[in-house]
Amino acid sequence: MSNKKQQEFVKEITPMEVDFSQWYTDVILKTDLVDYAPVKGCMVIKPYGYGIWEGIQRVTDRRFKETGHKNAYFPLLIPESYLQKEADHFEGFAPEVLWVTHGGNEKLAERLFIRPTSETIICSMYSKWVQSYRDLPVLINQWCNVIRWEKTTRPFLRTAEFLWQEGHTVHATPEEAQQETMQMLEVYRQVAEDELAMPVLLGQKSDKEKFAGADRTYTMEAMMHDGKALQAGTSHNLGQHFSKMFDIKYLDRDGELKFGWSTSWGVSTRLIGGIIMVHGDNRGLVMPPRIAPTQVIIVPVASHKEGVLDKAYEIKKQLEKDFRLELDNRENYSPGWKFNEWEMKGVPVRLEIGPRDIEQNQVTLFRRDKLEKFTASMDNLNETIANLLDDIHTTMFNNALKNREEKTYTTTDYEEFKKLMAEKQGFVKTMWCGARECEDKVKEDTNATIRCMPFDQTPVGDKCMMCGGEAKHVVYLAKAY
Amino acid sequence: MSNKKQQEFVKEITPMEVDFSQWYTDVILKTDLVDYAPVKGCMVIKPYGYGIWEGIQRVTDRRFKETGHKNAYFPLLIPESYLQKEADHFEGFAPEVLWVTHGGNEKLAERLFIRPTSETIICSMYSKWVQSYRDLPVLINQWCNVIRWEKTTRPFLRTAEFLWQEGHTVHATPEEAQQETMQMLEVYRQVAEDELAMPVLLGQKSDKEKFAGADRTYTMEAMMHDGKALQAGTSHNLGQHFSKMFDIKYLDRDGELKFGWSTSWGVSTRLIGGIIMVHGDNRGLVMPPRIAPTQVIIVPVASHKEGVLDKAYEIKKQLEKDFRLELDNRENYSPGWKFNEWEMKGVPVRLEIGPRDIEQNQVTLFRRDKLEKFTASMDNLNETIANLLDDIHTTMFNNALKNREEKTYTTTDYEEFKKLMAEKQGFVKTMWCGARECEDKVKEDTNATIRCMPFDQTPVGDKCMMCGGEAKHVVYLAKAY
Repeated sequence: MSNKKQQEFVKEITPMEVDFSQWYTDVILKTDLVDYAPVKGCMVIKPYGYGIWEGIQRVTDRRFKETGHKNAYFPLLIPESYLQKEADHFEGFAPEVLWVTHGGNEKLAERLFIRPTSETIICSMYSKWVQSYRDLPVLINQWCNVIRWEKTTRPFLRTAEFLWQEGHTVHATPEEAQQETMQMLEVYRQVAEDELAMPVLLGQKSDKEKFAGADRTYTMEAMMHDGKALQAGTSHNLGQHFSKMFDIKYLDRDGELKFGWSTSWGVSTRLIGGIIMVHGDNRGLVMPPRIAPTQVIIVPVASHKEGVLDKAYEIKKQLEKDFRLELDNRENYSPGWKFNEWEMKGVPVRLEIGPRDIEQNQVTLFRRDKLEKFTASMDNLNETIANLLDDIHTTMFNNALKNREEKTYTTTDYEEFKKLMAEKQGFVKTMWCGARECEDKVKEDTNATIRCMPFDQTPVGDKCMMCGGEAKHVVYLAKAY
Repeated sequence: MSNKKQQEFVKEITPMEVDFSQWYTDVILKTDLVDYAPVKGCMVIKPYGYGIWEGIQRVTDRRFKETGHKNAYFPLLIPESYLQKEADHFEGFAPEVLWVTHGGNEKLAERLFIRPTSETIICSMYSKWVQSYRDLPVLINQWCNVIRWEKTTRPFLRTAEFLWQEGHTVHATPEEAQQETMQMLEVYRQVAEDELAMPVLLGQKSDKEKFAGADRTYTMEAMMHDGKALQAGTSHNLGQHFSKMFDIKYLDRDGELKFGWSTSWGVSTRLIGGIIMVHGDNRGLVMPPRIAPTQVIIVPVASHKEGVLDKAYEIKKQLEKDFRLELDNRENYSPGWKFNEWEMKGVPVRLEIGPRDIEQNQVTLFRRDKLEKFTASMDNLNETIANLLDDIHTTMFNNALKNREEKTYTTTDYEEFKKLMAEKQGFVKTMWCGARECEDKVKEDTNATIRCMPFDQTPVGDKCMMCGGEAKHVVYLAKAY
């Protein structure tokens, strides 16, 4: 059975070289991350997928709190009139909000919309809460669900309903707001790189791509295995747009009433899609150890033999102080079947323990990232595994970085660019004049968009790749999810 | 300023003996737990209120995981047709669901309702996931928002939108489902009593009061300061109602297809209302130490004097390994003002540190529950505070229990009962024949309802208090929130 089953596992996942999109769908369904819900574009996040989200929440929320933010909860439903207050914001979100019109059998007096993001409701509350300079800064975050009624959806990457966090802050000065915007981008970078082993490019969005109602949007962009970009988190400096529309004013020390300066920033369950497409392979998921729901899976071998299960439980007890782990003691499955299943689920370390291991005071370890198997002494096992997980993290990060570097090109020749986009995808570093027309043109020609203007603006040419006019910005172009 | 401010603090809260309902409203608004949202019946949970919810989540979620449950996430929106599948469930929830009819400018093909609870959507997914006895039991929980469009609302106690967790399980046998139902009731009891210091009565609901679609509902009922009951958590044995309606079938070991047995159970942000009304006093909140967002508030006294602030930060650093704490170093407020504010917010322990304390190698401690102040050595301070928090927990639990016992009466005389309900409120233990008519009558006469049939059914009489007929059940009657 074991051999046949192994083949079946492999058969279940379409190789990514054959069809990357089908590979993604196969992986998320076969590894029990997600299921399709009866409502179009909505997903059910199954326990294993939700465990990843819990990991992301844990490492992100800790950093929010360390930087002085507190969590709160604002209502799901917002009156129609609120959406119309900020013009750009309305234009950006009105086409994709869901409308609630009836409660029981009664028609509501005013239609309500389900939050697609919460600037409007939160700013209306801040307008009550902020009176004096003493009330600033306001540093609040919420973890919640939002809905954007999109036409084309794909689990985790773009779904009608998704889970996210949205931070909303108000400051006394534009400098403080800018500092906050950048601080939170840095928090996101740390989460992506230091926790998810996902290298990111940081930079500013073009006006076309920025958040509806923001002065400036900053982004982190990750490269997926197929060379396409994923916008993995954004941080917005909202200037005074929302504080003017929602009347967020404070009495300053000098006795004058002034409008506040606000920011907002968010990451979502989309990050899970990023983890899958950055690290996954043809055997399935490869989970970054620091947020993996299960870091170590213990599989007893020849567990009917005396002492094996006892030893497995003993090891479990010893390790579970330091790691998230499970012991797979299911009787109806062979060790080989279990190996395959946990490999597909991307558990970073498998620990096998059998009669021979016990005899030799050792365990057999398998690391998912390199598919390598080796033995280790039972002495200092916690330390061995801690180091192994660190090494897996670093290896995964370096592999992803190497993939990004190999698929990042620099050119200012538009024909070469088009060829790259058609044949190889990847990121292209080039020059842009700043005109919206050039942005639209490159999108029409190749479906690529400006992912960001990186902070390092050392020029790679002096002419706009699209129009040949004077270059103003270094940009990264890519097709994106 | 300090004296004037102290008076102002006290003036801000209506004494509970004068108007309990106004006391509640004053407390939740003045202590920044909550604010009213623009949508009728919805609330904003402010950071201090949300911190309490995070505490409740922490102690509850840990127990869910220890009992083998995993978290997942199911969609907010459910197709109209799903609501109609289980008749009792439809009747119970249809009048208070909100309907989504449009996405952007387009009318939806089928109306969607916002989950008031998720049995329908979850059972429809379980019907796909459960195929074999190997797939059982299914032990899943979700933390989420739900909406019930109620007419009369009050923050935390009854709001249109609220946060909760809902566990949904499927089992192979009725015995296992019953065991799960009781296990989760016990988990809730532990959370209430061991974490929130809130004594609860456990028992079964009458058919009238049970969950729409359940075989049996079990409840924990807490007594508020005014003698009224709060249903603080419920655990439902759903029998095969939902598995039959949603076709949750499994192939058993014996080769037969069988319907599963399911349960659901939940606690919500309502518990925060319970904490307020069980423990609060005329100075404001009294937070149970184990879930208090801030367990210790450090207030430096004469902080302009050399060494005071340094010492305060040193103590903070030493204590924050073990406790959730804050150091109030705001310059514009006097120590007296700060004392009052943190008392109102119910922080269990205040730690004052001033020049004299430093001289004598001591700190001044104040416990919120007893309003007692005393000094303690700086040596072994972490241990001193850990013991103090434990003692505060026990004292709070005992006070609440004493209050409940003092306001619990036993009678089988209906006239006496009516007088009790009119003059004293509280819980009344009595006998009931089991007829719905008697339940309706007592509600109409006194507004009291059967809170539960306690597990200890030692009779306190042989006749139904309402009709004089043969008594079948010991019950607790009370007015309820």
